[in-house]
Amino acid sequence: MKAEIISTGTEILLGQIINTNSAYLSEKLAELGIDIYFQSTVGDNPKRLAFLLKQALKRSDIVITTGGLGPTVDDITLRTIANTFKRKLIFDKRILFHIKEHFRKRGVEMPPINIRQAYIPEGAVILENRQGTAPGFILEENRKFLIALPGPPSELKPMFEKEVIPFLKSKFGLKEVILTRTIKITGISESAVAEKIEDLLKLKPPLTLGINAHPHEVHLKITAKEKNKKMALVKITKLEKEIKKRLGNCIFGKDKENLEEVLGKLLVKNKKTIAVAESCTGGLIANRITDIPGSSRYFILGIVAYSNQEKIKLLRVPSEILEKYGAVSKEVAEIMAKNIRKIAETDIGIGVTGIAGPKGGSPKKPVGLVYIAISARDKTEVKEYHFLGNRLEIKLKTSQEALDLIRKYLMEK
Amino acid sequence: MKAEIISTGTEILLGQIINTNSAYLSEKLAELGIDIYFQSTVGDNPKRLAFLLKQALKRSDIVITTGGLGPTVDDITLRTIANTFKRKLIFDKRILFHIKEHFRKRGVEMPPINIRQAYIPEGAVILENRQGTAPGFILEENRKFLIALPGPPSELKPMFEKEVIPFLKSKFGLKEVILTRTIKITGISESAVAEKIEDLLKLKPPLTLGINAHPHEVHLKITAKEKNKKMALVKITKLEKEIKKRLGNCIFGKDKENLEEVLGKLLVKNKKTIAVAESCTGGLIANRITDIPGSSRYFILGIVAYSNQEKIKLLRVPSEILEKYGAVSKEVAEIMAKNIRKIAETDIGIGVTGIAGPKGGSPKKPVGLVYIAISARDKTEVKEYHFLGNRLEIKLKTSQEALDLIRKYLMEK
Repeated sequence: MKAEIISTGTEILLGQIINTNSAYLSEKLAELGIDIYFQSTVGDNPKRLAFLLKQALKRSDIVITTGGLGPTVDDITLRTIANTFKRKLIFDKRILFHIKEHFRKRGVEMPPINIRQAYIPEGAVILENRQGTAPGFILEENRKFLIALPGPPSELKPMFEKEVIPFLKSKFGLKEVILTRTIKITGISESAVAEKIEDLLKLKPPLTLGINAHPHEVHLKITAKEKNKKMALVKITKLEKEIKKRLGNCIFGKDKENLEEVLGKLLVKNKKTIAVAESCTGGLIANRITDIPGSSRYFILGIVAYSNQEKIKLLRVPSEILEKYGAVSKEVAEIMAKNIRKIAETDIGIGVTGIAGPKGGSPKKPVGLVYIAISARDKTEVKEYHFLGNRLEIKLKTSQEALDLIRKYLMEK
Repeated sequence: MKAEIISTGTEILLGQIINTNSAYLSEKLAELGIDIYFQSTVGDNPKRLAFLLKQALKRSDIVITTGGLGPTVDDITLRTIANTFKRKLIFDKRILFHIKEHFRKRGVEMPPINIRQAYIPEGAVILENRQGTAPGFILEENRKFLIALPGPPSELKPMFEKEVIPFLKSKFGLKEVILTRTIKITGISESAVAEKIEDLLKLKPPLTLGINAHPHEVHLKITAKEKNKKMALVKITKLEKEIKKRLGNCIFGKDKENLEEVLGKLLVKNKKTIAVAESCTGGLIANRITDIPGSSRYFILGIVAYSNQEKIKLLRVPSEILEKYGAVSKEVAEIMAKNIRKIAETDIGIGVTGIAGPKGGSPKKPVGLVYIAISARDKTEVKEYHFLGNRLEIKLKTSQEALDLIRKYLMEK
C-alpha cells in the first residue's frame, strides 16, 4: 500500500508557516505500515492542485490532502477535489447543524459564509471535526482513496486519530499493531550510548531500535510490530530490560516524561523537600522544578544570588572564602548548597556557581566552568564541569546536570 | 521566474524530522521576487528523485534540491543529478582540501569515506560550505538552473545567503531590494492591534504590512521592495513612524530583539538595578532577565519564595497579612516588591504572587489570578490579572507582564 500527502496553502509555499502536518501524517502512516513515497505542497491554485491530485491518484493508493477546507475564496481544495472526481457538491444538513453548534457553544453567531462548509462531494464519507467547523471527507474510486483533512494541526490530528486510522485499519485489514516506547537518557553522549547498544541498533523489523540526540538528552525509540498489543508489549519490555541492563541509571524516564517530572515523582515518593541556591543559572533550575504541577509539595525556596554581596548576605558565604577562592569555586558551591538547605530547612540543598559567558571568563576560569553542589544530611558532593556552548546552552546544561544529580542521589537511596 | 524545491530524505518522508528548509528557502525566494509553485519531498530513492527532477525542470526555471550530499550510501542526490543531466562526476582537489581543512580544524582525521564528497558534476559551479564538508553546486542547462544544497539547516542557510543569493541576483538581474522590519508588540491582543491599523494592513506592494500572533506578542512585518536599500529604508521608516503613532509604547522592540533584551538595555541606560521576589512564576522572571549577556550589571537578586514560611522568613511578609489576605493578594505582592528592593538594595523591586494551577484555585481565587507589584523610590503599583491557559502558559504570561511593567516604568521616566 502506497500513500502520498498533498499540502495546500500559499502560506506554506511562501515559507510563512512550517509544514508540520506532513511530518505528523508521515509518522502515523509509517506506524500503520503504509509506505509514503512522495509529499507535495502547492498553493491555493485549482489548476496546480488538480494536476497534483491526478498525478498522485495514478501512482498511490491513498492520497491525503491537507488544508483548503475553510469558508473563504482562497480555500479551493473541496471544489477542486469534487471537480477532479466529477462529483457534485451536496448540501448536508447534519454538517450545518454541527457548524452551528460549534459557534453556539462559543457564544458566537455563525457567520453566513460558513454555510459553504456544509457542502460535501456526493458519495463521500464525512469525517467529523471535533475542534473546528470544516468536516473532512473520504472519497473512494477504483480502489483508490482520497482523504481530505483540514489544515490546522489542532483539527487535523484528532480527526486523523479518531476517524481516519479506524477507517484505514478496517478498509485495508491492517490488523497488526505498532507500539513504540521512547527511553530517555541524560548525562552521557550519543556516541557513548551507541557504543553500548551497537548490536541492538541493528535489529530488524518487527522489533527495531532507533537512536536520536536531543539537547542534553539521548532518546532510544523501540518499535514493535505484532499481531496484538500484548505481544508487542512483551517484545518491547524484553528489549527495554536489556537496554536498562547496559545503561543503568543513565536512563531517567520514558515516553513523554521529562527530567523535572521524574525528579518530582522521586521527591514525593521519598518525602523529601528541596531548595536551590543559583548563580549562573539565574533561576532556571527553580523554574524547571516549578514547571511541574504540585511542585509546591517539595520545592520550598530558590535564591538567585547574582552578586557577591547577596551571596554573603543571603546565603551567608563568608567573604574570606569568596576572596580566597572566587565566587566560581568548589568551596562556594558547597557552602551555597549547605546554607540554602539550612535556611529553607529542607532535606536537600543545591548550590550552583559558574561562568555562563559570553564574557567573564579567564584563562584559569574559562566560560563554561561550573560547580554544582548537592547537600543532604547523609551526603555532600561538589562536581566540576566544563560545558561548551553559548550562554543559554550553558545555563540549560547546568540545570540538566543539577536536576540529574538530585535524581541520582534519590535513586541510590 | 518560477522556482520549485525538492527535499530529499527518508527521515522527512517518515516524519522523523520536520522540513524547515522548505519554509526557509520559500521565504528567501519570495523576498527575491521569485515565484514558487511547488514543493516536493522524496525519500533516498534514485528513481523517484530522477522522476521529480525531470518534472520540475520541465515546469520551472530554478530547481533547488536539499539533502543527500553526504558521504554515505543513502546520499543519492549528487549521483542522481549527474545522471539526470548526463554529466560525469569529476574529482576536485580544492574541495578535498576544504574537507580536510574542516576536519583538521576540529582536530579530527578525515574518515576516508568523505573523499566521495570531493566529486562534483562536470561544469558545475561549486558552492562553498562554510559549516560542513559537502559542497553545494549549480548546474545550468538550456537556461534552467539546478541548485543542489546540503540538508542540515546550519549548512544550507549560510550557503544560500552567501553564495546562492548573489548568484541569482547577478544571473537574473534582480536589482530590486527587499527589506523587512518586524515591529514587536506586547500587552495587547492581535485583534486590538489589527483594529488600530486596519487600513495599513491593506497596503499593496511595493510596501506591505503583515500581522502575526506569537505567544503573548503580536508581530507586525513591514516589507518594502525598492530599487535600492536607501529608498526601501525611507519607506519602512515612514510606515514604522505611523505605526508607532497609533500603538505607542505597546511596541517594545524590533526585528530580533526580545523583551528581556530591551529591558536590559533600558536598565543599563537608566543605570538602574533590579531584584525579583517570585512565587507562582517559580524563577522564570529571574531566568529570563539573566538570559541576557551582561545582566549581572543590573540583576542583583531573585528569591523564589514558594512556601508561606519563606515569604515570612526571607521576604519579611508579616504573618498577619498572609493570614488576613492570603498569599495570593494585592497586599502580599506589594510587600514582596518593597522588601526585595530593600533586601537587595536595588532601584526596582518586583513582587509576583498567583495561582498557576492546575490545582490550588478556588471560586474566589481561581487558577490564573495573579498579582504583580513594582516598587521603586518614586512609585509603587500593584496590578491584578486573570490569565487563561495551562500552568506553563500562566507562568509565561505572568513573566511577560512583569517584564513589560518594568519596561513601561523605565520608558516613562
